[in-house]
Amino acid sequence: MFMRVDKLQAELPPPKRQDPNAAAALQELLGGKYGEMSTLGNYMFQSFNFRSKEKLRPFYSLVASITAEELGHVELVSNGVAMLNNGPDVPDADAGDGGDISKSPFEAMKDIRSFASFASGAGGALPVNSNSMSWNVDMVTTTGNVVFDLLHNFHLECGARLHKLRVYETLSDPTGREVCGYLLVRGSVHAHSYALALKQITGVALEKFLPVPNIPLDKIPECQKYLDEGSHRRLYTWSPADYKEIAGIWGNGEQALPTDPPGELTVVDGMPEGGKIHQLVGVPSAFTPDYAPEEMFEIATKLYKKSR
Amino acid sequence: MFMRVDKLQAELPPPKRQDPNAAAALQELLGGKYGEMSTLGNYMFQSFNFRSKEKLRPFYSLVASITAEELGHVELVSNGVAMLNNGPDVPDADAGDGGDISKSPFEAMKDIRSFASFASGAGGALPVNSNSMSWNVDMVTTTGNVVFDLLHNFHLECGARLHKLRVYETLSDPTGREVCGYLLVRGSVHAHSYALALKQITGVALEKFLPVPNIPLDKIPECQKYLDEGSHRRLYTWSPADYKEIAGIWGNGEQALPTDPPGELTVVDGMPEGGKIHQLVGVPSAFTPDYAPEEMFEIATKLYKKSR
Amino acid sequence: MFMRVDKLQAELPPPKRQDPNAAAALQELLGGKYGEMSTLGNYMFQSFNFRSKEKLRPFYSLVASITAEELGHVELVSNGVAMLNNGPDVPDADAGDGGDISKSPFEAMKDIRSFASFASGAGGALPVNSNSMSWNVDMVTTTGNVVFDLLHNFHLECGARLHKLRVYETLSDPTGREVCGYLLVRGSVHAHSYALALKQITGVALEKFLPVPNIPLDKIPECQKYLDEGSHRRLYTWSPADYKEIAGIWGNGEQALPTDPPGELTVVDGMPEGGKIHQLVGVPSAFTPDYAPEEMFEIATKLYKKSR
Amino acid sequence: MFMRVDKLQAELPPPKRQDPNAAAALQELLGGKYGEMSTLGNYMFQSFNFRSKEKLRPFYSLVASITAEELGHVELVSNGVAMLNNGPDVPDADAGDGGDISKSPFEAMKDIRSFASFASGAGGALPVNSNSMSWNVDMVTTTGNVVFDLLHNFHLECGARLHKLRVYETLSDPTGREVCGYLLVRGSVHAHSYALALKQITGVALEKFLPVPNIPLDKIPECQKYLDEGSHRRLYTWSPADYKEIAGIWGNGEQALPTDPPGELTVVDGMPEGGKIHQLVGVPSAFTPDYAPEEMFEIATKLYKKSR
Amino acid sequence: MFMRVDKLQAELPPPKRQDPNAAAALQELLGGKYGEMSTLGNYMFQSFNFRSKEKLRPFYSLVASITAEELGHVELVSNGVAMLNNGPDVPDADAGDGGDISKSPFEAMKDIRSFASFASGAGGALPVNSNSMSWNVDMVTTTGNVVFDLLHNFHLECGARLHKLRVYETLSDPTGREVCGYLLVRGSVHAHSYALALKQITGVALEKFLPVPNIPLDKIPECQKYLDEGSHRRLYTWSPADYKEIAGIWGNGEQALPTDPPGELTVVDGMPEGGKIHQLVGVPSAFTPDYAPEEMFEIATKLYKKSR
Amino acid sequence: MFMRVDKLQAELPPPKRQDPNAAAALQELLGGKYGEMSTLGNYMFQSFNFRSKEKLRPFYSLVASITAEELGHVELVSNGVAMLNNGPDVPDADAGDGGDISKSPFEAMKDIRSFASFASGAGGALPVNSNSMSWNVDMVTTTGNVVFDLLHNFHLECGARLHKLRVYETLSDPTGREVCGYLLVRGSVHAHSYALALKQITGVALEKFLPVPNIPLDKIPECQKYLDEGSHRRLYTWSPADYKEIAGIWGNGEQALPTDPPGELTVVDGMPEGGKIHQLVGVPSAFTPDYAPEEMFEIATKLYKKSR
Repeated sequence: MFMRVDKLQAELPPPKRQDPNAAAALQELLGGKYGEMSTLGNYMFQSFNFRSKEKLRPFYSLVASITAEELGHVELVSNGVAMLNNGPDVPDADAGDGGDISKSPFEAMKDIRSFASFASGAGGALPVNSNSMSWNVDMVTTTGNVVFDLLHNFHLECGARLHKLRVYETLSDPTGREVCGYLLVRGSVHAHSYALALKQITGVALEKFLPVPNIPLDKIPECQKYLDEGSHRRLYTWSPADYKEIAGIWGNGEQALPTDPPGELTVVDGMPEGGKIHQLVGVPSAFTPDYAPEEMFEIATKLYKKSR
Repeated sequence: MFMRVDKLQAELPPPKRQDPNAAAALQELLGGKYGEMSTLGNYMFQSFNFRSKEKLRPFYSLVASITAEELGHVELVSNGVAMLNNGPDVPDADAGDGGDISKSPFEAMKDIRSFASFASGAGGALPVNSNSMSWNVDMVTTTGNVVFDLLHNFHLECGARLHKLRVYETLSDPTGREVCGYLLVRGSVHAHSYALALKQITGVALEKFLPVPNIPLDKIPECQKYLDEGSHRRLYTWSPADYKEIAGIWGNGEQALPTDPPGELTVVDGMPEGGKIHQLVGVPSAFTPDYAPEEMFEIATKLYKKSR
Repeated sequence: MFMRVDKLQAELPPPKRQDPNAAAALQELLGGKYGEMSTLGNYMFQSFNFRSKEKLRPFYSLVASITAEELGHVELVSNGVAMLNNGPDVPDADAGDGGDISKSPFEAMKDIRSFASFASGAGGALPVNSNSMSWNVDMVTTTGNVVFDLLHNFHLECGARLHKLRVYETLSDPTGREVCGYLLVRGSVHAHSYALALKQITGVALEKFLPVPNIPLDKIPECQKYLDEGSHRRLYTWSPADYKEIAGIWGNGEQALPTDPPGELTVVDGMPEGGKIHQLVGVPSAFTPDYAPEEMFEIATKLYKKSR
Repeated sequence: MFMRVDKLQAELPPPKRQDPNAAAALQELLGGKYGEMSTLGNYMFQSFNFRSKEKLRPFYSLVASITAEELGHVELVSNGVAMLNNGPDVPDADAGDGGDISKSPFEAMKDIRSFASFASGAGGALPVNSNSMSWNVDMVTTTGNVVFDLLHNFHLECGARLHKLRVYETLSDPTGREVCGYLLVRGSVHAHSYALALKQITGVALEKFLPVPNIPLDKIPECQKYLDEGSHRRLYTWSPADYKEIAGIWGNGEQALPTDPPGELTVVDGMPEGGKIHQLVGVPSAFTPDYAPEEMFEIATKLYKKSR
Repeated sequence: MFMRVDKLQAELPPPKRQDPNAAAALQELLGGKYGEMSTLGNYMFQSFNFRSKEKLRPFYSLVASITAEELGHVELVSNGVAMLNNGPDVPDADAGDGGDISKSPFEAMKDIRSFASFASGAGGALPVNSNSMSWNVDMVTTTGNVVFDLLHNFHLECGARLHKLRVYETLSDPTGREVCGYLLVRGSVHAHSYALALKQITGVALEKFLPVPNIPLDKIPECQKYLDEGSHRRLYTWSPADYKEIAGIWGNGEQALPTDPPGELTVVDGMPEGGKIHQLVGVPSAFTPDYAPEEMFEIATKLYKKSR
Repeated sequence: MFMRVDKLQAELPPPKRQDPNAAAALQELLGGKYGEMSTLGNYMFQSFNFRSKEKLRPFYSLVASITAEELGHVELVSNGVAMLNNGPDVPDADAGDGGDISKSPFEAMKDIRSFASFASGAGGALPVNSNSMSWNVDMVTTTGNVVFDLLHNFHLECGARLHKLRVYETLSDPTGREVCGYLLVRGSVHAHSYALALKQITGVALEKFLPVPNIPLDKIPECQKYLDEGSHRRLYTWSPADYKEIAGIWGNGEQALPTDPPGELTVVDGMPEGGKIHQLVGVPSAFTPDYAPEEMFEIATKLYKKSR
């Protein structure tokens, strides 16, 4: 079972300007083959399909708990995409009747790369890559062979890191860069953890491969605050009470990667504090939430009061 | 953010026999257009993309909290699929060397409907429908228009119920039938809740449509224990502290559907107690977890001890 | 613009027995690359996109009018698929409450090839091929180059005929065989007409290629009544008043293929008389039209009377 | 069976300039999930698969006759796409040899969003959405349950209207705006008619939902002439003699929506008068119909004369 | 550039009986995510896109030369699929007129898993997996980062081996088992070679992972003759004169895996001798090559003589 | 079996500037329905699935040998795509540490049509069309009926030529134009050869259709050197010793097309001399081959020396 907390894993700075093509680029990290829908889909189905869960508890718990973190990554990138698609929030822009819709208020959308992200998705995020291709089952590997699935996951996290770097190198807006910076640190943790799990089984020191690609996180300004707070040495259980067995893999004196700030790896029960979710103010002229929405706001306020 | 608890929303009875074609039929409720990946995908992205969250809090919270329940539905169907694909657990069948693999030990798989579910998925669940077609973005609607998205969701839950009934009518094994029975009750709750939300905005008593399709749950034996415990009158917040505003929609004197046991609708903080996850014993001859796995079990036990 | 007439192009004999796998085989002629959705999709979009329509009127009219016939082919195959999926009609089986749905009334569906055709499509037809793969844009060629598009269409009709023959050789039920027999005659007419159009432009006697594949229609018993009535020598305009210019291509002394009954090719204004559409009686236990449908029948009767 | 008439449902004003990105935006209304291929595909297959047609005649006839109108909508949008892709017609531009093809005459196409619409589709329309993704079976729902299928259709028409409005707000060229204006009026009729059909069966006044999204048509200048002539109160049978039973649903004193010009709903036998189809002059340098086409024009003229 | 030699990499024993479901199972090794189209597609595009080819020659040559071997693997599996689909060759069955096609000569095909493989593919192989899903670009990774692409390839070969074993365990016919046995040996060589390449760059002894899955080839009778002749220690250049630099990676004293017969790794210039391609006798009733094909044989014989 | 030679079929001039949108346009000739992956896929699988190979040797050899040439075409277009994506080579740009990656070095990529070609494909080629849609099995026809498959291939080559011309008319950079020019000459040879094969079987002089589209190659400057050297009159066997029987079809006094330089058609054993493969210098800031790659170059040099 899963629970939800109304926060983001990292607080995102507001976008400087509306930039649908930047949002579309960021979609590569959401619905691309090496995006967060893929890490989520792989670990989620691997954890459902895991065999001999009791006998292999630490390995099962590793895949199961990271699944929950990936859900939050999907949420984080989605928020970033929506923010870049819409630009800075204008408070109360969601009130009023939207003006004269016959004056082509969205003419600027005509030339963006992913028109359907506006016309159908209303500037939100979708499980597609930067070329608008759908995420799909071909991006999921779940063979039930623990060694192979972990090797696949190790490769997947390295590939994800490569894609995050390239998107980072493309974006200049702080919202998108923050998404990349945060995910680079956490993706590195996941790659590291799969390497350590495989080392336990095979004896091969796979963590010596890292980092792949070969760029230390200290070259990325947006990574620094996460490194400073030691995020790169921490795995969360993402659970009120379960999955603590991951400490058998992530811990036991294992250390941070040599290119990162030094220290021992530790497991933290539960989840990080997180940051505020962006408001994403509605646009009446695009019928979000709807044209002339004040009546809806009033109804919602009434219902809200009833619920307290 | 999301947390995970190592339990299923409902405890599933063990399968009577291995039946990959029954498992494939159940896949329709996982990766089909009206399956749980679709309800999950629609509500997850709608909640990420929701505009004016604060002003429309009760509606936002409804979609956001049901998202978390749908994650558990995806998990439940996945467990059912894996159990039917594999048949009754044979304790300790995951030990040993798998025997003589040159004797075509899996010849029986040759004629099943979804061979790849064995060859690649190892009898696990995948985000595909009963015809092996991938779940994809065409099954996600997130327009940002709250009235329309809720109407879409209402139609989606009615359609999901229709598919659940047909799969139920096909299956004779208790595992699959329990999955359907549980989901029929919970799906009815979701359809009901979207109808009530729309009634608040539009004044149209949409809940009078229900049930669609027109079959009271009391005709389904597997639904009875859930009706008896009042599951059909309950919405959970699926959160330690958030989403309580759904009580503005689900509550306020609203009653159970006339075809279900009577009583007032209530919101429950958090989540249900849930049931045990099936073990899904490994099969060395199919290399799950791996050939001659005792060594892996030993390593896992050692790591488990270290984690305590 | 298009009009509709509530008849089938050919009257189909009732099926001998329910045979979903035969229905799935027939789907190849509906949604396969060389199926009727493809001939429809190619000619429909080619006719929309046709350039210099006035100057090239006879060629435009050929493609435009055959489009209308292909709509009826899609309808015919769809009816055949639904009939084979459902078996012989049982009059008034659509009344009543459907019996005890907890007794797995559709257990037999569990092992059919295309389970979703039952679970989601309710035994109806869908735009998919015999392997449940969706028809899609990759099956449409519309280049705007008249010579090339006609050559493509010639190849498409020959390929369609090849597939019809193989499906015919697979089916033993009279419903499916009648579909194939009728389509073989009409498909031959279309191949012939594209050959004659190309001969007018290029001077190459392409009709001498025919028949491809090399089987005279007189080997197919189900083709005989259509040959006897001269269907193989007739092109319809499928229009109250337009597209008569096809007589410039199909006519002018051109003769039937040497392997078919002899005679001159002629254009017929309008459409053939057609046959009755199959009733496809509902199944309450599968909720079609709905459980306990008598009330719906009564409402419909009342509305029917009001409409007169 | 279907017939074809060589006219468009509405006459489209000529485009002001060639704008392939505007054409690509309009494709959302053709091959998108809520586009005309989807309304066509849903109603066409629902009508083929409809059960107990005789007993449920008014409902069957509603779905069957709207299918024919949707064919004309597909045609209308396709014409609009082709016109925007090509710009104003230049009479006799289809003659001549196309000039020096080695001078990159189509360099401007290099940067358009959907290059394949030029390279392969020659500036015509294709069954894809605004992101070039193919229309497919996942956009078709045909469950055989009449109540649910009508509910689906009601949701589909509301969604289609939402997409039409957003595309309208994007386009400034009169051709594309006219397409949207016409379809908004007719889509509103279809949503209204499905609401009335559902009201007859369930007693829920679903038409009170409308309009969704919440914008009266009088805000759209391009809708006015259609409202003035009462198009919003009219359903056509689109048939020489069939489908008249729709008057049981659309009529009987039912009135226009309160936001539209008032009056009673009426059924019109047959079809509207329609407008002229755009010529779409060929471009020899792009080999449409072919390079140096005069010989083809001459042959066509000769054949035309023979056909009279 | 590529050359072709009219031989198979391994001679396949004739099939014992026609078994289309076994053929469909074998398709997993052709068009599945871990099948030969994927190894081919990955290495082919990686070699085309390889950067700094001169400076990284041994790594480039490794990927480039294995590409050519994978082409032969695609050919080998395709031959196996076609042989299982068709059963033992009946000499001269390709002559004659095919008999009475109205007697449903292919009724047995109606219930096979992949009907389109008969109806459209005529019992040949296609780039699809065992569930008839198309091979596609999502199965190709080509990032230009040499370390990551090699890591991906290492994981791909391990995954391919896992799938080969499961298909092997399913098949009882000698044709399909020979395909698996041969590919298991060669796939092991490729996994080994990528491990050694990565060891050169990173210093991590990745070959100690092998074999994954953990089954020595000596448990597979069909592998023995290939092990006996030392195939597991050999890489071919698959070129008249190029790619010899792979000896820098595969050689230099590196040894066979400890679970295989011992010996040093060696590079062989060119290609193995190979075996005879199966004849695949035509079936006139299925119009392959065509109905009453003697005339075609005669024409071919005449042309053959002219060519000498 | 296949061999590989480290050369391109034609030497490509260096690109004038980086132009990812031009590269994306060229992708239409790689992964589009009428691109080189399609000609390759069709002939490769047709040759694998060919029936009665011995009796129909000249026809089999034609399809089999052209397969090998198509592999080289896929390689040629892929090289062109990569060159246009990357622009002129800067020698030794692949050394160094890539500079400050936090300065958005790839901001210019944000607005290109196919962002994933940069983010994931690193500026390489992929099996997709100009709209980023994957090549797939729907683009492969292999029916086993020799007459029909040859007719399909004839149509395919004509369509490929049409697409090549339109892409040529779009590109101004010499690299892409050279690709088109070369392929136009060779594609014309293939269309011609299939026409001659069909003429042998059916007696219809199909080569008189050519050229389709109707543009003589002498209008394309980039074709001249290939025409001058007689490439249009030559078929290669692409084999050390096989496929010589194609001389029964291509030869025997058959002549060049009337619009091309005159002369007899001849078969050449083996392959053309070919040209140099472009170096495609790496970009450390995009991690190709990897960040700070000097160490890798050194390792490669060491391995190279060992291999000699």
